[in-house]
Amino acid sequence: MFKATINVTLKKSVLDPQGKTVLHALETMGFSEAKDLRVGKYFELTIDAADNKSAQEKVKIMCDRLLINPVIEDYTFNLTETK
Amino acid sequence: MFKATINVTLKKSVLDPQGKTVLHALETMGFSEAKDLRVGKYFELTIDAADNKSAQEKVKIMCDRLLINPVIEDYTFNLTETK
Repeated sequence: MFKATINVTLKKSVLDPQGKTVLHALETMGFSEAKDLRVGKYFELTIDAADNKSAQEKVKIMCDRLLINPVIEDYTFNLTETK
Repeated sequence: MFKATINVTLKKSVLDPQGKTVLHALETMGFSEAKDLRVGKYFELTIDAADNKSAQEKVKIMCDRLLINPVIEDYTFNLTETK
């Protein structure tokens, strides 16, 4: 079993109104040291795979086919083996 | 300047219908190796701080006061120094 933690972000060229709103809220609360904020998604996926390499390939395919919108989003992921 | 990457997850005791739905979609697409999936949020925050320690404290305060709902969510974050 492998656990994949997948971080999804909007591409840098894509506007992020949600992030802007949260950043503005932080500023309003007095956190003037917050300079930029972007909001993304996070998946914790447990998958069954024989080895690290095949787990990586499966996660990539799942991301490309369902979890991620490749037009506007980028993603990175980490894999760790679990029992 | 520091960049904080914050991963927010629902606590384990909290049901995650969104994750269940996405997992079911994966299964329907033939990815039977996907065993569990939970969906969370991801923030990329750029903050201005004198050193790592004060940056950490600021991120914690921002999380506790605005970004996270401590009743149902847990979070972890990483800090890296940027120019």
